[in-house]
Amino acid sequence: MIRVLLAEDQHVIRSGLVALLGLEDGLEVVADVGRGDDAVSAALVHRPDVAVLDIDMPGADGLTAAAALREKLPACRTLMLTGHGAPGQLRRALDAGVGGFLLKTAPPDELVAAIRTVHAGGRVLDPSLAVTAWDLAADPLTPREKDVLRLLADGAEPAEIARSLHLSAGTVRNHLTAVVTKLNARGRPDAVRIARESGWID
Amino acid sequence: MIRVLLAEDQHVIRSGLVALLGLEDGLEVVADVGRGDDAVSAALVHRPDVAVLDIDMPGADGLTAAAALREKLPACRTLMLTGHGAPGQLRRALDAGVGGFLLKTAPPDELVAAIRTVHAGGRVLDPSLAVTAWDLAADPLTPREKDVLRLLADGAEPAEIARSLHLSAGTVRNHLTAVVTKLNARGRPDAVRIARESGWID
Repeated sequence: MIRVLLAEDQHVIRSGLVALLGLEDGLEVVADVGRGDDAVSAALVHRPDVAVLDIDMPGADGLTAAAALREKLPACRTLMLTGHGAPGQLRRALDAGVGGFLLKTAPPDELVAAIRTVHAGGRVLDPSLAVTAWDLAADPLTPREKDVLRLLADGAEPAEIARSLHLSAGTVRNHLTAVVTKLNARGRPDAVRIARESGWID
Repeated sequence: MIRVLLAEDQHVIRSGLVALLGLEDGLEVVADVGRGDDAVSAALVHRPDVAVLDIDMPGADGLTAAAALREKLPACRTLMLTGHGAPGQLRRALDAGVGGFLLKTAPPDELVAAIRTVHAGGRVLDPSLAVTAWDLAADPLTPREKDVLRLLADGAEPAEIARSLHLSAGTVRNHLTAVVTKLNARGRPDAVRIARESGWID
């Protein structure tokens, strides 16, 4: 029996999913909640095998909940279920070690199959997100270049970036030049935009 | 009119594709060849807008041809058409800057749509490769760690790796320890296997 936790703030959708999953042999919904923070606390009580998490939820978003679950309940696999699949969300999902990422437009039998796959340790990604994932994989930036770009995106001046990363001003300049070149950007703001839209920085 | 070059070594398949593409408005097959090296030389003569390249071909494989075309004829977009989609192939395709990657199982109208998308500067990835692409995007290794792991995979001893990368023996050891930990591997050979199967090193 696969024990499932369901976190979805839209009550009608949640009830529908609970009913749907209840019809499946070998699946049992052990808890259903409407907030991300409740998902984490309910999981610690009910110890589900798989947590199905909506991304847009009050309390904590589903990706924050997934990251918390990974830390506090490593045996629990996570499956994100969301209305859209923005590149940045997919990147955060990867970083949170989620097992699957499905759109709400997926047919019900795909959701059930995804729960089983994720439970078995496999990975699932909505086929319509193939190109988005490929774009993510095309990420040309080094971790250090991303650190620099993230601080720039937050509004830091190069001198502040140098201080906070313990780098020389020249090194920061070199990283920024490399980033602009790699992304074929028109300048630093354009580099930030490209990296964000591609999901390479948050 | 979109000028298409087609490179496919299986003659029957090639003839079928030429006939199929010839039926489409706005597409014209300007050359069709059966070898990767011929694809490059024919492209330099016929200047296609899009080169549709099989991967397994004599002469040079399709990915090598795609990399050569990117350098010699940057205006020509490339679309890989292959029987399988191994992670390593997808990684090489990304590195070669290809515009699309379709399996031969794709329906004909998807191939035609992919040619148009790639021609317009868009990216196409076979939906069945969504999870493969996501695995690629999950790559946890730094470029330096990959350099070290690649040399190890080629059979180099740590001391040789240190010499050829101008690193100290201790640094190489640290990189290898980090790689084994990140990949949750049972040891160095296991780390090589995991990284290869995931497409993170060639």
